[in-house]
Amino acid sequence: MYSTMQDVPLLVSRILRHGSTIHGKSVVTTWTGDGPPDRRTYAEIGERSARLAHALRDALGVRPEDRVGTLMWNNGEHLEAYLAIPSMGAVLHTLNLRLPPKQLAWVINHAEDRVILVNGTLLPLLAPLLPALTTVEHVVVVGPGDTSALEGCRPEVHEYEALLVDRPGTYAWPELDERTPAALCYTSGTTGDPKGVAYSHRSIYLHCLQVNTAEAMGLTDADTCLPVVPMFHVNAWGLPHAAFMTGINLLMPDRFLQPAPLAEMIETERPTYAAAVPTIWQGLLLELAEKPRDISCLKSVTIGGSACPPSLMKDFEEKHDVRVVHAWGMTETSPLGTVAHPPAGLDPEAAWPYRITQGRFPCSVEARLVGPDGTEQPWDGTSAGELEVRGNWIAGAYYGGPGAEAVRPEDKFAPDGWLRTGDVGTITPDGYLSLTDRAKDVIKSGGEWISSVELENRLMAHPDVLEAAVVAVPDERWGERPLATVVLREGSTTGFAELREFLAGQVAKWQLPERWSVITEVPKTSVGKFDKKVLRARYAEGGLQVTDVTAPTAD
Amino acid sequence: MYSTMQDVPLLVSRILRHGSTIHGKSVVTTWTGDGPPDRRTYAEIGERSARLAHALRDALGVRPEDRVGTLMWNNGEHLEAYLAIPSMGAVLHTLNLRLPPKQLAWVINHAEDRVILVNGTLLPLLAPLLPALTTVEHVVVVGPGDTSALEGCRPEVHEYEALLVDRPGTYAWPELDERTPAALCYTSGTTGDPKGVAYSHRSIYLHCLQVNTAEAMGLTDADTCLPVVPMFHVNAWGLPHAAFMTGINLLMPDRFLQPAPLAEMIETERPTYAAAVPTIWQGLLLELAEKPRDISCLKSVTIGGSACPPSLMKDFEEKHDVRVVHAWGMTETSPLGTVAHPPAGLDPEAAWPYRITQGRFPCSVEARLVGPDGTEQPWDGTSAGELEVRGNWIAGAYYGGPGAEAVRPEDKFAPDGWLRTGDVGTITPDGYLSLTDRAKDVIKSGGEWISSVELENRLMAHPDVLEAAVVAVPDERWGERPLATVVLREGSTTGFAELREFLAGQVAKWQLPERWSVITEVPKTSVGKFDKKVLRARYAEGGLQVTDVTAPTAD
Repeated sequence: MYSTMQDVPLLVSRILRHGSTIHGKSVVTTWTGDGPPDRRTYAEIGERSARLAHALRDALGVRPEDRVGTLMWNNGEHLEAYLAIPSMGAVLHTLNLRLPPKQLAWVINHAEDRVILVNGTLLPLLAPLLPALTTVEHVVVVGPGDTSALEGCRPEVHEYEALLVDRPGTYAWPELDERTPAALCYTSGTTGDPKGVAYSHRSIYLHCLQVNTAEAMGLTDADTCLPVVPMFHVNAWGLPHAAFMTGINLLMPDRFLQPAPLAEMIETERPTYAAAVPTIWQGLLLELAEKPRDISCLKSVTIGGSACPPSLMKDFEEKHDVRVVHAWGMTETSPLGTVAHPPAGLDPEAAWPYRITQGRFPCSVEARLVGPDGTEQPWDGTSAGELEVRGNWIAGAYYGGPGAEAVRPEDKFAPDGWLRTGDVGTITPDGYLSLTDRAKDVIKSGGEWISSVELENRLMAHPDVLEAAVVAVPDERWGERPLATVVLREGSTTGFAELREFLAGQVAKWQLPERWSVITEVPKTSVGKFDKKVLRARYAEGGLQVTDVTAPTAD
Repeated sequence: MYSTMQDVPLLVSRILRHGSTIHGKSVVTTWTGDGPPDRRTYAEIGERSARLAHALRDALGVRPEDRVGTLMWNNGEHLEAYLAIPSMGAVLHTLNLRLPPKQLAWVINHAEDRVILVNGTLLPLLAPLLPALTTVEHVVVVGPGDTSALEGCRPEVHEYEALLVDRPGTYAWPELDERTPAALCYTSGTTGDPKGVAYSHRSIYLHCLQVNTAEAMGLTDADTCLPVVPMFHVNAWGLPHAAFMTGINLLMPDRFLQPAPLAEMIETERPTYAAAVPTIWQGLLLELAEKPRDISCLKSVTIGGSACPPSLMKDFEEKHDVRVVHAWGMTETSPLGTVAHPPAGLDPEAAWPYRITQGRFPCSVEARLVGPDGTEQPWDGTSAGELEVRGNWIAGAYYGGPGAEAVRPEDKFAPDGWLRTGDVGTITPDGYLSLTDRAKDVIKSGGEWISSVELENRLMAHPDVLEAAVVAVPDERWGERPLATVVLREGSTTGFAELREFLAGQVAKWQLPERWSVITEVPKTSVGKFDKKVLRARYAEGGLQVTDVTAPTAD
């Protein structure tokens, strides 16, 4: 017995061909600040993608599977690179312009990028790195910018439009194997070197189909999508490719990510949908409170990237009538992992607890929770475990570099290939995920887990506590125990025994910290998150004055 | 360079697992006529599917790739078979109960079905065939029915519920190759033997994702879907599997497909979406005109299977405020080929011409028109050609039978593997397909095509013409020329010259028929379509009185 179906590979070139023909009239609009927006139809994008592919192959010698880096904002040219580079069989390497310069250079060298497309406005970032780049042969400058810093640099410098002119507007896109790598994105891991995730044509295509289902984003060519989330950050959550698959119009913010220009482009260009991390929405809310603008065009927005404060979601809905949908994902998950649409038929009040979860998994993402003892935890809404996922657009390894094997660190991948997300949480019987901690921040005490985030949130609810960070410290009997570090309000006389008593009514007795320390400020990372590894190191070096309030008991 | 993504096969068992856990509370309701409807949650369906798989494997000896036939209506048990049989690695063979008995037996023998699941109410259809069935070892009777006709028959007879009882409620679904055959469906071709299309797990999974996109059906678990289209007809347009993928509730009509029970179940169970062929909707409209019922629950319905009269679409929308969406497909296309959502932003009047087309192709269905000279035709909305399609859920061959190679008749498949649909039409620049003729009914005259359907429709617009059928007849100079056969109103004195003059203002001169014949009635097939092969045969045998009105000229 055999199937009689055609065997057609899932390729980015099919998305390109479809979007530029059937949806040829759809438009990508790039915001330019003071000037008139730049508009291109999908038909034009298709033609220019073909020109770009010819330029890369014929003028710059790009061969199949060569990496082409992009150091670019969200704009029409970046969309052309998104479509042309994978379609011609090369690999689109999106460069995170927020990485520290040293990491950025490391990433370019590790991927062995041969060409870098760079927005002219980002040359001040790239130029100083050039002497450290070992493989880059060509730099293509996209849009205006001061190129004087490139004078005398080793890579050959080209101008994007000059490179495209006079090239054919069609290209014989090769019929690749669908497992060919299409795009490369490095995580901005806080520990160690960045790690590369190499998406395949297959994973991108399937992810696009999922993004376009009604249970996920459900956009059509009647929509205009504003991806504020950068195209160098997990492919702008898959939206550019998904847009080309169904003709959703795109509004690209380029480098204008500040609240004021965002408010202005929304009022002027009237997108129906937008996607960004919480801080962007927080800033927009404040801007609108100060200078009201009409954002009634927005039907819904997706918030992801980090947990969204419920107050922010409520503000958006109550003040601006914009539906806010919470979602979760990571570089390793392409990123669509969960989307928090509530179950059907609930009134707004009853739906709320579901909407502030990370959401539900689609069919193509399988999930399991692995508890402190290494066993799978039930989906009962209370049993916590580290989230592990499996699926068609989930990484099963990291890119080891040219000539090297894929890397599968055991803290990142289970022996059977599932991705260890490093996130700890619970899942309800109907599949709603709630994340509470990063696995590395959970305190493993006597075979049980204690959530540091829960203790912190409860401590910070005390009127005299300004900030609180709870970290795991070694304990002879229990393996690990929580150390509570608190920043007290000036003049507060609240003692540790009182804080411990305050917690006692709210969490199990065995979870109560016995080690306490007052600090002047919680150390933070560059993006403002609690930097717990600094606290742990300070404790280990004896740099904290610790009071032992009481020893834990076995009951 | 390599991709680092997990390699997870696209399998029906993943849909089964997902639907029965994350959407475990969704419900399939089967209408039972007078009795209370039968309701099962997706969690129960999942458990019963596991029991069914155990029964098939352990009690009936079903092995991987064995064919299990289903002669069943749309109901909960059929859904269990849809999920269990492919998931265990066997092949679901849906049997078209409308086939002539001889063809039905031929199909069962050709597929070598080892087991047949049959609704008790369909035993009168199956029992007389049993002596002719060469491979069937087991008959499993589902639901009540008179089993006396099975007494003494060769295959072993089982009762479905008795077979399932006491079996485990979980099953270790095998990790199959995604190109493994999952389901088999034979076309009810009007010429020659039926032809088998073997869908793969991959094709079904991808088709489900597409059905659930907002640009196609866009259903979610907030919807209840009524598939009136039978599960023995191209997998009920993919809706059962698609429903399990996103938790859409199902309302199954079982054998109650008459207008009155359909109206009653819609009013009682309140589906939000339904899918059926035009005749079903026509009947429902008449029923509602006679006995009004509340069908306001329906948000949209899909009409496909054959071209839908615009008047029917308008009636539905104006009288019942139900959005009617036209779609096109065939057994060989799984069937989603096109969906006729109009371009965004048009007012209802401007949208109408798009909505009565067959619709637009999704990304995964590539299309081309091949003209009379074998060359590809432009998408200009006027150049006609035979529609050829390519894609992940499009057949590339027919099932040749056990041990036999796949069959690729050249009138059905192009040398490069594209499916020749046998439909002739045009495509607009933005991808809207309009089908006008079956390829076999087009008249190939001097390297040009003449649409028989267009000539018929124009002739039937003449007040004295009751019916008109135009067929191709051999012509020495032009290859083929049109023969117009007309049924005239009683007492009419209209002559052929006058009819020809009537046409002359409406079609090109070279398309005007010169051969004319009056007949008493156009011969029709069992489903009421014009049976043109009878007319062609009658002409060939000299059985028609033909008048030559004028010879065609070259201008």
